[in-house]
Amino acid sequence: MLRNGQEYLESIRDGRTIFVGKEKIVDPTRHPAFAGAAKTYAALFDFKADPANRDLLSYEEEGERYSMYYLRPRSLDDLRRRSRAHRAIAEFGYGLLGRAPDAMAGNITGLAMNATYLDSEVGGSGTNVMANWDRMRREDSFATYAIVPPPAARNPEYYQSKGVAQPALRVTSENDAGVVLNGMKMLATGAAYANEVLIGNVMPLAPDQRKESITCIIPINLPGLSLWARPPFNWSSVRTFDAPLTTRFDESDCVLVFNDVKVPWERVLVHDNAALSRNMYINTPSHVLANHQSNVRFGVKLRFLVGIASLVTRATGARDIPAVRETLGRLAAYEAGYQGMIAGQLEDFISTEQGFALYNRRYLYAAINWAMENHSILIDTVRELMGGAHFQFPASVDVLERPELRTAFESLWTAGAQNALDRMQLFKLAWDLIGSDLASRATSYEKFFVGPAFAVRNYSFMYAPWDEFHAIAEGLMARDALSQGSDARFRA
Amino acid sequence: MLRNGQEYLESIRDGRTIFVGKEKIVDPTRHPAFAGAAKTYAALFDFKADPANRDLLSYEEEGERYSMYYLRPRSLDDLRRRSRAHRAIAEFGYGLLGRAPDAMAGNITGLAMNATYLDSEVGGSGTNVMANWDRMRREDSFATYAIVPPPAARNPEYYQSKGVAQPALRVTSENDAGVVLNGMKMLATGAAYANEVLIGNVMPLAPDQRKESITCIIPINLPGLSLWARPPFNWSSVRTFDAPLTTRFDESDCVLVFNDVKVPWERVLVHDNAALSRNMYINTPSHVLANHQSNVRFGVKLRFLVGIASLVTRATGARDIPAVRETLGRLAAYEAGYQGMIAGQLEDFISTEQGFALYNRRYLYAAINWAMENHSILIDTVRELMGGAHFQFPASVDVLERPELRTAFESLWTAGAQNALDRMQLFKLAWDLIGSDLASRATSYEKFFVGPAFAVRNYSFMYAPWDEFHAIAEGLMARDALSQGSDARFRA
Amino acid sequence: MLRNGQEYLESIRDGRTIFVGKEKIVDPTRHPAFAGAAKTYAALFDFKADPANRDLLSYEEEGERYSMYYLRPRSLDDLRRRSRAHRAIAEFGYGLLGRAPDAMAGNITGLAMNATYLDSEVGGSGTNVMANWDRMRREDSFATYAIVPPPAARNPEYYQSKGVAQPALRVTSENDAGVVLNGMKMLATGAAYANEVLIGNVMPLAPDQRKESITCIIPINLPGLSLWARPPFNWSSVRTFDAPLTTRFDESDCVLVFNDVKVPWERVLVHDNAALSRNMYINTPSHVLANHQSNVRFGVKLRFLVGIASLVTRATGARDIPAVRETLGRLAAYEAGYQGMIAGQLEDFISTEQGFALYNRRYLYAAINWAMENHSILIDTVRELMGGAHFQFPASVDVLERPELRTAFESLWTAGAQNALDRMQLFKLAWDLIGSDLASRATSYEKFFVGPAFAVRNYSFMYAPWDEFHAIAEGLMARDALSQGSDARFRA
Amino acid sequence: MLRNGQEYLESIRDGRTIFVGKEKIVDPTRHPAFAGAAKTYAALFDFKADPANRDLLSYEEEGERYSMYYLRPRSLDDLRRRSRAHRAIAEFGYGLLGRAPDAMAGNITGLAMNATYLDSEVGGSGTNVMANWDRMRREDSFATYAIVPPPAARNPEYYQSKGVAQPALRVTSENDAGVVLNGMKMLATGAAYANEVLIGNVMPLAPDQRKESITCIIPINLPGLSLWARPPFNWSSVRTFDAPLTTRFDESDCVLVFNDVKVPWERVLVHDNAALSRNMYINTPSHVLANHQSNVRFGVKLRFLVGIASLVTRATGARDIPAVRETLGRLAAYEAGYQGMIAGQLEDFISTEQGFALYNRRYLYAAINWAMENHSILIDTVRELMGGAHFQFPASVDVLERPELRTAFESLWTAGAQNALDRMQLFKLAWDLIGSDLASRATSYEKFFVGPAFAVRNYSFMYAPWDEFHAIAEGLMARDALSQGSDARFRA
Repeated sequence: MLRNGQEYLESIRDGRTIFVGKEKIVDPTRHPAFAGAAKTYAALFDFKADPANRDLLSYEEEGERYSMYYLRPRSLDDLRRRSRAHRAIAEFGYGLLGRAPDAMAGNITGLAMNATYLDSEVGGSGTNVMANWDRMRREDSFATYAIVPPPAARNPEYYQSKGVAQPALRVTSENDAGVVLNGMKMLATGAAYANEVLIGNVMPLAPDQRKESITCIIPINLPGLSLWARPPFNWSSVRTFDAPLTTRFDESDCVLVFNDVKVPWERVLVHDNAALSRNMYINTPSHVLANHQSNVRFGVKLRFLVGIASLVTRATGARDIPAVRETLGRLAAYEAGYQGMIAGQLEDFISTEQGFALYNRRYLYAAINWAMENHSILIDTVRELMGGAHFQFPASVDVLERPELRTAFESLWTAGAQNALDRMQLFKLAWDLIGSDLASRATSYEKFFVGPAFAVRNYSFMYAPWDEFHAIAEGLMARDALSQGSDARFRA
Repeated sequence: MLRNGQEYLESIRDGRTIFVGKEKIVDPTRHPAFAGAAKTYAALFDFKADPANRDLLSYEEEGERYSMYYLRPRSLDDLRRRSRAHRAIAEFGYGLLGRAPDAMAGNITGLAMNATYLDSEVGGSGTNVMANWDRMRREDSFATYAIVPPPAARNPEYYQSKGVAQPALRVTSENDAGVVLNGMKMLATGAAYANEVLIGNVMPLAPDQRKESITCIIPINLPGLSLWARPPFNWSSVRTFDAPLTTRFDESDCVLVFNDVKVPWERVLVHDNAALSRNMYINTPSHVLANHQSNVRFGVKLRFLVGIASLVTRATGARDIPAVRETLGRLAAYEAGYQGMIAGQLEDFISTEQGFALYNRRYLYAAINWAMENHSILIDTVRELMGGAHFQFPASVDVLERPELRTAFESLWTAGAQNALDRMQLFKLAWDLIGSDLASRATSYEKFFVGPAFAVRNYSFMYAPWDEFHAIAEGLMARDALSQGSDARFRA
Repeated sequence: MLRNGQEYLESIRDGRTIFVGKEKIVDPTRHPAFAGAAKTYAALFDFKADPANRDLLSYEEEGERYSMYYLRPRSLDDLRRRSRAHRAIAEFGYGLLGRAPDAMAGNITGLAMNATYLDSEVGGSGTNVMANWDRMRREDSFATYAIVPPPAARNPEYYQSKGVAQPALRVTSENDAGVVLNGMKMLATGAAYANEVLIGNVMPLAPDQRKESITCIIPINLPGLSLWARPPFNWSSVRTFDAPLTTRFDESDCVLVFNDVKVPWERVLVHDNAALSRNMYINTPSHVLANHQSNVRFGVKLRFLVGIASLVTRATGARDIPAVRETLGRLAAYEAGYQGMIAGQLEDFISTEQGFALYNRRYLYAAINWAMENHSILIDTVRELMGGAHFQFPASVDVLERPELRTAFESLWTAGAQNALDRMQLFKLAWDLIGSDLASRATSYEKFFVGPAFAVRNYSFMYAPWDEFHAIAEGLMARDALSQGSDARFRA
Repeated sequence: MLRNGQEYLESIRDGRTIFVGKEKIVDPTRHPAFAGAAKTYAALFDFKADPANRDLLSYEEEGERYSMYYLRPRSLDDLRRRSRAHRAIAEFGYGLLGRAPDAMAGNITGLAMNATYLDSEVGGSGTNVMANWDRMRREDSFATYAIVPPPAARNPEYYQSKGVAQPALRVTSENDAGVVLNGMKMLATGAAYANEVLIGNVMPLAPDQRKESITCIIPINLPGLSLWARPPFNWSSVRTFDAPLTTRFDESDCVLVFNDVKVPWERVLVHDNAALSRNMYINTPSHVLANHQSNVRFGVKLRFLVGIASLVTRATGARDIPAVRETLGRLAAYEAGYQGMIAGQLEDFISTEQGFALYNRRYLYAAINWAMENHSILIDTVRELMGGAHFQFPASVDVLERPELRTAFESLWTAGAQNALDRMQLFKLAWDLIGSDLASRATSYEKFFVGPAFAVRNYSFMYAPWDEFHAIAEGLMARDALSQGSDARFRA
């Protein structure tokens, strides 16, 4: 069943606890720092529930209709359907919502494509994977994840010797009902707006970190759970015109703090198995399926960015300068190349042993690596194309409310045929995309949301067909050796 | 006479008009968006007036004491004295105040090192240059400049054909008392805090833009002059702890709007001479002297940035990883190289025909080019070294005010031997340097404050000794030709 | 009919004229500077004629069998067949033969997919396009092209005023039999080994350069035509072991000099139409079809390069250092991303109005742009991974021929379990790929074979859907405007 | 006493053994692969001995005259004299002779500025340092060095377990007369032309590698010592016109192979002290003094390169295109910045405890790092500016020897006012600088001659004033803490 926006908004008025500094917030839909983005997500639910978008954004199975991002793909066509849905959702959010509902849905659906793997390992529960996946799609749930330990977790000896509580989230006790969790978990993007959150580990744990291996999917409003938000960007009463993205798309990032939080067994996917808690993403389609969403989302953002770059140069009159035209051509080449890397994941898709279809893994990690390496450069390029233009506009569009200021503004800031207000709207938008707090956080996000650079490159290293690559040169060298008689290659 | 902070603050309570959006501000020293930086400048005046810093920051001439940045250097030692003063001022502002009082002072002092050049050209007044320079040093004036036309100025035909007022600042009438100005001028960094502003043109004007060539130094509070500020970053009531740089160093950028502003002749340096209004900076030491301040300031910021990079990696425990250590080594090499480029300007200084000493011009532009090309990369490097650390901290230090939050914060956010509050202070500071609105504006500033990239490279092109460079290869080729007889080089 | 290697070799013993400096060469198959590569091409013909490779490298039409690269693709599957054939040929040549027989074949086949376009323009002959394409596939011809004017062509006034002959190739007279050509044309890669050459213009001509617009396909041995080669790299008697690539893959580059060369009309595709002579590549599938070969070829070279990078680090023992492993992961990500961009051209293929299928144009140019921007960097990366290793080996493997040198070599140059000869073979190969004259020429080739950077980016600019890109931001801005009532967007 | 060229040439006809592959060479001054460079060095000795260059290239001490590069600098002026001499020598060799006589002279002279340090360590002999330095300057010796072990040296266990000889050079026996050496040492650039060679270790040895710590200065013609050269580039009979640099400046690289080579004690500087054998360069001025030569030399090459870039664009007519002009401006800025970093080493020079003056260490390493990071990029930039021009010229200037070819060449290759021969000379020269085998080897050389990148950055890391850098941010944070009362910084 597909929820509408109103139903979604009500579902997150569930008594959750969010701290913004010392301020406690329980209803993000009504607090100025959160209401803007909540409204955006609600509109997304309406968009998805709209019958006009039925085939694009949902699928039917056994008489029930589910959001497309819960579809387990069995064919190239299924993969294309998922890609199209991701694209529509990303376009709705201009590629700015990293953790839209279709993100974490890829993780759980990917697990559900090889749930028996979890059953085959001690402490894993494929049964719970399947049950939660099915529940989530039925509830049309919006979930997110928090899968990184606090930095201090690296040095457990310290805490033992000092008798201080280890901050890393862990199972501190367990009984028939389930486990009890204490500690903290980083960094739940979107948690302020989500219904539930996957707790787990994306980086390898040490073998003795069994208690930290707990992997579960829990509601945000569990007693004892609190969300500690980083500074919201939409906190002050900025006008939409002056910050058209910040006022709508601040998805928020929260640290999760657990204080004797009780989690029932049916929500637990992994318990007491350090290796499994990480490998589950790699040894199932989970990581790939989830990250295809991030590929598509970034591709949409890239189109937005390239479009802004072009509009900005048109507004400054620089678009016809050869060097600027070449820069735009290069940006367009990057955009096309990135979309090519996504399309290639379909052409060279993989069939899994479980009978499912999966995006090409190597191209997917290549696209992530590309985005990670180039996002800052792209932003910097647009910054250069903008020059100081943004700083030359008044602090706010409210200048229009005072007639004498309005007159001055409209006569002086107009540039040829472009009226002052249109120009200002464009530059405020461009700056909100590349220069604002929201933009700066996005720059860090694009660099790290899959993990640090070495981890991303490690995925590429892991899946590279080194034997094939080596065979090329080795074949040439061997041929030379053979054609010249044993031990006589040097005589050629 | 050196002013103290209190005197400075009083001097800018002069009835000036600043618009932040529709809000009109007349006393920047008491408005929340401006008071923080005003206080910083006042402290800088106190610092300069402190007898302990007398020799470092001021010089004596004919019994009077002036700020060092008004010194006309006659020797290598004088150049060193100026450099040291710039460094002390930059260190006071952590390299974040692009338009500190010593910036524009370099421009006027540079003009005063070759004032006769202005006298030799129609419409130029070396006499007024000398008089204003002398007045400014006596008043210990804090001046800034606005020397870029509005974008629309490029297409004057449009305005004539439409009967619309041309927005570019220009002389609209003149009489015995002086000139009357109308239009707008970009982008007066620091004007909200300065005593006066140089109006002029750093980019070439078309020959027929005579009326736009007006170059003058005027008080900020002239009737008819208003300052239109870009959005202040320190507007909301953020705590110093949470944004230690934004709360202190937002130097502000304002568009200047002129509405029948009367400027007396003694303040006019150039009138009705399009070429001179730009060449005055190039054909005197003005541009070089002023930009040495920007070199030194950037060098100080670079040290701050490299220090932060190191502290951040120490805090995350990554500093001993070989790849991180190599990154820090590279940053340190950049810092050293940049300081080398500054020191080289002294070793290879120039003697001018007027008997003054001047920093090496080519190394100076090389240093600007380096900063312009590398600042974004440096920021990005520090961003990578920080990872997502900053987002993992609470929105504000005010969590300490609620005991239960404080307890959780101090136990969970502590990392080994580093207590939570120290870590938070460091990461808030680091983010304010590289990720905040203030930081983002600085990234644009470092790219454009001397002009667009092609202009900066043009300075390097203009002053390169192409004949010497060509002579190397030409010498080799000619030697080959000669040694082999005429027309016979090919026989070698 | 598919030719074998022997037939091919005989076909280029046709009395052609090649000048290497002052030396005149008529049989490239027997001259030391050319015999190595000629043998390579002959082996490629044998490889193609091998019945085992029939389905991979050829197709059947109306009972005849043709090389696959003459196939006019009508479906996605046809495109895949062409791609596979290109890949097999590229693998045969390790991606080093830029102008293998399948390169220019793409051009003529692409023209043959829209020959009516040429008929529709004055001076164009679709009929001749079709006839030549059919002839070439029947003859299993190896063709290349020369489509750039000499630099001096830019300034025709000079030649007129001086009475000097304009060097650019042009029609100097014509009659019933055909045209007579004089002048020079750049830069016929592979011409020393090819059967025929397409003469034309890839860069726009000025409208008055009608006589230079001549576009024709001519045999290499036409009377009056001579090939002026750049210095061959395989000239001296180097051993294959010491330069395993140079001795096999120097495809040669020649300037074509025409001295009253007569070309019959049936070989002429365009005459007296400056615009058409360039647009024919863009307004038909020609440019795209031909450059897909270059994409695939580069992708194969990339795999070779990445494999060498890995083997080299394995040989030096550095492969397990984290930073090196990360570098290899990055190289592997680049390789995967590049293959993704190629695969994406299939997933998002285009259907032409003429009923043919075509690779996605935008992804294709993106891939070219990527290769052009990154090839030097990739080479530099491998150079860094090699360190100075190559210079530490003896000048030639012939040291093995002197027993006392062999003993010293085998004992001292052995490194652990890796014997000296194996190590030397690998490093000589690696150096020949990235450091030799052959490698250096390839670095220039990869940068320029499609034209200068601005031209490549221009293709990306031309085909970018700017309206779509603009619509994203414009849609957002318009929505804001609409939702707030006319002229009231600022009130939000 | 300063030797002339003839004396120098005779001095290297000393019976040395050089292997080029299997070929044994004993007189490099007469062998085609070496005679070109030998002649260059001889001309350099003549240049130095020329009375006109006396003050520039030599100094007097106690009535004797020595080459300037043996001067132990006691003042800023002495440092300037050394820099000027390096510059003159580098200009003589167009910056292409990395290991000119003034290179290694810096090493030994730097040791001689703190010889007591060697005396203070076990196995070190400051006495021998002083004696050899004095002898070398008296003999006007041309020395080079070989200070890297073979790769296999990293794994000594292997050799012990296999009973195979360890290839790393080591002392295999010793007696009253001296030590006996066996094994190999990398990579003696210039050894084919030098009089003697410093054997040592620039990278840290393991503590148990005592026998490898041997550091000595030995003649090239010692019995048992052979030089194994990498492939010479000037081997074949290329004309100077066609390769004006390769034919003159191939300084050669040789592996040194020792077979029971006897070295008398007076030539030994370090014996049986692993740590000292590396630290001697760092804990004396040796490394800095020697590398200032490399800085100056690279700066000269940079000027050559920038000049070539400009001439090439002038020849192709591209120099006036704005984008090209900007590229040249950027190259000129780099050149100026690099010279600035060198000049800065003088302005901020260091005084040593021994009463000597030394170039600023941090700027020096910064300059090395800059060159290492940017050389490939610079070469690539010039390659782009050249386009395919070089490949469009005939293989050799010998085309002029055949009248019909000469006529064609002179008419067709002339471009406007530039005659064909001049253009060809320029492009052959440019290619020899950036594209030939010689150029490719230089690209590797500039990357590695001081060691791998991490080592170079480690020098920058080691000498960075981290405490000063940290103090900036720490001071800010502490001030905040103090100004707000203990424990109360958060209340601001």
